[in-house]
Amino acid sequence: MSKLLNNVNSPKDIKSFDLSELERLSAEIRELILDVVLEKGGHLSSNLGVVELTVALHYVFDFSKDRLILDVGHQCYAHKILTGRKDNFASLRSYGGIAGFPKRQESIYDAADTGHSSTSASLACGMLRYGHDGAQIVALIGDGAMTGGLIYEAFNDVKTIGKKFIAVINNNDMSISKNVGSVAEYLRDLDSVRQPFREYGIKYYGSVDGHNLEDLIKAFTYARDSKNSIIINVHTQKGKGYAEAEKYPDKYHSYSPAKAAGDSFGSRMGKKLLQLAKKDGRIFAITAAMADGTGLSVVRDELASQFVDVGIAEEHALCMASGMAVSGAKPYVAVYSSFLQRAYDQLIHDICLNDCAVTLCIDRAGFVGGDGETHQGVYDLSYLRTMKEMTIFSPKDLEELDAVLEWSAGFEHPLAIRYPKYVPVHKYSTHEKIELSRWEWLKKDGEDVVVLACGAVMNDLAMSLHEKRGGFDIVNARFVRPMDEEILNKIRDKKIITLEDNVLSGGFGSGVAEYYLSKGMRVPEMICKAVDESKLTHATLSRLMELCGFTEEALSEDIDNLKKK
Amino acid sequence: MSKLLNNVNSPKDIKSFDLSELERLSAEIRELILDVVLEKGGHLSSNLGVVELTVALHYVFDFSKDRLILDVGHQCYAHKILTGRKDNFASLRSYGGIAGFPKRQESIYDAADTGHSSTSASLACGMLRYGHDGAQIVALIGDGAMTGGLIYEAFNDVKTIGKKFIAVINNNDMSISKNVGSVAEYLRDLDSVRQPFREYGIKYYGSVDGHNLEDLIKAFTYARDSKNSIIINVHTQKGKGYAEAEKYPDKYHSYSPAKAAGDSFGSRMGKKLLQLAKKDGRIFAITAAMADGTGLSVVRDELASQFVDVGIAEEHALCMASGMAVSGAKPYVAVYSSFLQRAYDQLIHDICLNDCAVTLCIDRAGFVGGDGETHQGVYDLSYLRTMKEMTIFSPKDLEELDAVLEWSAGFEHPLAIRYPKYVPVHKYSTHEKIELSRWEWLKKDGEDVVVLACGAVMNDLAMSLHEKRGGFDIVNARFVRPMDEEILNKIRDKKIITLEDNVLSGGFGSGVAEYYLSKGMRVPEMICKAVDESKLTHATLSRLMELCGFTEEALSEDIDNLKKK
Repeated sequence: MSKLLNNVNSPKDIKSFDLSELERLSAEIRELILDVVLEKGGHLSSNLGVVELTVALHYVFDFSKDRLILDVGHQCYAHKILTGRKDNFASLRSYGGIAGFPKRQESIYDAADTGHSSTSASLACGMLRYGHDGAQIVALIGDGAMTGGLIYEAFNDVKTIGKKFIAVINNNDMSISKNVGSVAEYLRDLDSVRQPFREYGIKYYGSVDGHNLEDLIKAFTYARDSKNSIIINVHTQKGKGYAEAEKYPDKYHSYSPAKAAGDSFGSRMGKKLLQLAKKDGRIFAITAAMADGTGLSVVRDELASQFVDVGIAEEHALCMASGMAVSGAKPYVAVYSSFLQRAYDQLIHDICLNDCAVTLCIDRAGFVGGDGETHQGVYDLSYLRTMKEMTIFSPKDLEELDAVLEWSAGFEHPLAIRYPKYVPVHKYSTHEKIELSRWEWLKKDGEDVVVLACGAVMNDLAMSLHEKRGGFDIVNARFVRPMDEEILNKIRDKKIITLEDNVLSGGFGSGVAEYYLSKGMRVPEMICKAVDESKLTHATLSRLMELCGFTEEALSEDIDNLKKK
Repeated sequence: MSKLLNNVNSPKDIKSFDLSELERLSAEIRELILDVVLEKGGHLSSNLGVVELTVALHYVFDFSKDRLILDVGHQCYAHKILTGRKDNFASLRSYGGIAGFPKRQESIYDAADTGHSSTSASLACGMLRYGHDGAQIVALIGDGAMTGGLIYEAFNDVKTIGKKFIAVINNNDMSISKNVGSVAEYLRDLDSVRQPFREYGIKYYGSVDGHNLEDLIKAFTYARDSKNSIIINVHTQKGKGYAEAEKYPDKYHSYSPAKAAGDSFGSRMGKKLLQLAKKDGRIFAITAAMADGTGLSVVRDELASQFVDVGIAEEHALCMASGMAVSGAKPYVAVYSSFLQRAYDQLIHDICLNDCAVTLCIDRAGFVGGDGETHQGVYDLSYLRTMKEMTIFSPKDLEELDAVLEWSAGFEHPLAIRYPKYVPVHKYSTHEKIELSRWEWLKKDGEDVVVLACGAVMNDLAMSLHEKRGGFDIVNARFVRPMDEEILNKIRDKKIITLEDNVLSGGFGSGVAEYYLSKGMRVPEMICKAVDESKLTHATLSRLMELCGFTEEALSEDIDNLKKK
């Protein structure tokens, strides 16, 4: 039997399908997703769960003019396969290939570039307010995203706009981890859910079996033909159709075919924090729905009384941590760099202004690879450096992560420990003791050129080039704030190269220049190697490094050029 | 009759008062607030509205161990007067005096430093989670703050914590402007409000007359003695007891005794935007509950169809604007610099990533004076500069504001126009046409030292010193991103002074250094004059300028020192 999918080049091609064909098509889409993701990696559970739901949406609506806004966007695979991207789908998440998230540049069917949670209803409000006359505006929202406060800011606005809005809640009882809190509870209870939305002027429909195409089509047709704003509660199973993912949906939320043998920074952090928390009842491990991704699941499993999951609610995670810290606790919030952006004001207003002992364990800092632009963690050094109460540390390897975590237990101010997804490769023979602001000489031969390397990726690069050619000194510039003034004074007549996996603007290298300027010294001859934002896209780490000039060859050339000056 | 207040040095002193004494005390407190604020300026309406409410809270609870968290904190005056700060109260908002917002350093009765909206329930959750055994945790929340999404992230967490939490809603039907949206509506309806909070596991009590001490004491006593989390809906009148403020509560929200004669940047922006919007139906004026403060009230009053107030919900304001812009509209969001911090991720994720034509009109950038640390607008240049799609402009005067707004109408990318509360004084004889990235020479005599001045405050400073002594050139560095490379190349062998009312880290001066570094040039001899964060406090603009070294004398000395190098 030939594949139905072969002849589906746009959603228009499925309008004439009957129910059994739509079911066959769904099975084929699921198979394609499984084939590609198991080989290439990507978001598996969330995409397997919404296949029928996506097919039914495209069957009922015309998203070449209607708008489909995918909240977070990590459930876009079936949508991409249906909208002319099936033939390229095997290029998913690779450089130049199909992105893992919606991209307006890829297709008119992608309504907005998304990647972070709880924005869809706001975007929908904007689309209702302007343009799209006669078109339907549909937001597909995971129930996990319903804990994010922005959703309620948008719902508050719907009645005022006075136009029809359709929200489809993809209710799988999971955010990335298991859902938490009252929202998860009331979404399980029909009467309750009906009532909150009535307050927002939104009719409730549900719940609908998210794997029954007939029911889905009936529900979406009703919504399409209704005059009122409507919310449809669809129950789906995360990982549907792949036994392993159905059983362990969090583990398969983001799937990677290449499993690292040893510890990542995240898993190491979780273990060390568990150890520290067992000795100190003031220590709490806090996550915004990412116990697994951040490494905190070991604390959850072994010391639940000192573990807090607030759901997808980064602002609350940080503000709540501030409330704990002013009460004498010592909270550690583990969060991905790009999601910490969502709580920027809490950093300034609640944590720094109250100068409280909250430690941020910032994972996925720097290049993140296949997840693309929305997930790159390349701004944190810039925005954290502006906060005067903040101390920032970037360990060169796992041992140094352990050491700074030990050290942090006695530090009573805001602290950010920043590390990448990348697993460091260089084995360092010694480790200098952690003292506030102190950097570490890794190579000190009195060379003209000194490389100041920030973080594991950059120290690895400097060390591996040094093994090959030498001729320069290396400092592990682990404290990004405050900086090591003794070393900076000592090298003021040298030539300096700074290395960082953060953007140039306001980043580490910029901070080195600022130091000399603030002391009335002239800035030395310097090269600041930093992330070139115009090159950020979905690609492997090594490809992104290459695109931004972080290769041994390029660094070697920079050293030679600087020597000539 | 001698004043009761004379003998109230701590809340303990009012525990023995009878009802009529508490009423007399309230009248005395109201009188003191009026006396001081009408002379010194400050938040008037919000503080007059909560006098009885605050007296009753302190009568019922013991906030030396119980915790009172004041959401936003702009209603703290009666609280401060009752908690040992009445004798200093006349120093309100002046340098070294009583702060206009809660400050932990001032008193054990201040539970957390606050200044921004919707954080109280999160802070309360933190305090419930750690410490305070047997103590009562009370959050006082204005109904305006109930539109901010963070509040719902916190409510979602309350049931999980499983401890008793008391929320007092100060329901005056206003945020700063008149409240908007469904939340405002359901807070008016008893049945509705009861239901949403039941979902969060919080009992409802209300509504209570917020100016009737007997009813207030009864309600708070009930809450204190209850085993359950409880929300008390108190109706108050903003501006109570001062006829003018009762009539115009938004006008008296923040009162200043010295009224400027002419336009501020904000009022001028509103007028110009109204003019542009009348000619172009794509233009929308968007505010987060601050139509008056931002100058947008003229658009609201004269062109309501192109005006949007989303309530206190900055994230939604920006994300919604992105949805409008991808639909072809041209939204202008007017917002104070320190409140824009609350929507940092929307800038990156929704506006820049979608490269959409949203213009930010950022008011209160730089020094803001009496409102203190939480309101200073000194980070925006740093965080906006990291966003590669963002263009940043800072006008030197009102005419240049007009010009850039005219120019912006044809600009289809993210744009930030940044200006201070300060009214510029220098009269410029000419104005160079706006072209992307182009700066403007104000003095060009081929001097050794070139001052690059960013924004109105700094151009005024440079021009007034120049009138007195000359001997240096001046550039109005109006585009902070992208910068004027032609001028930067031309002055690379000069000595440079950068002036900005932003912090040094990642700010404008840092950007100038980065430019040279990025081009492989050595950074010239440079002095970067920027805001010294350790000096930020509540004080007049001129005092803050002096504290940060922005005086003619200091600048003159810098010029002389640089000439000697």
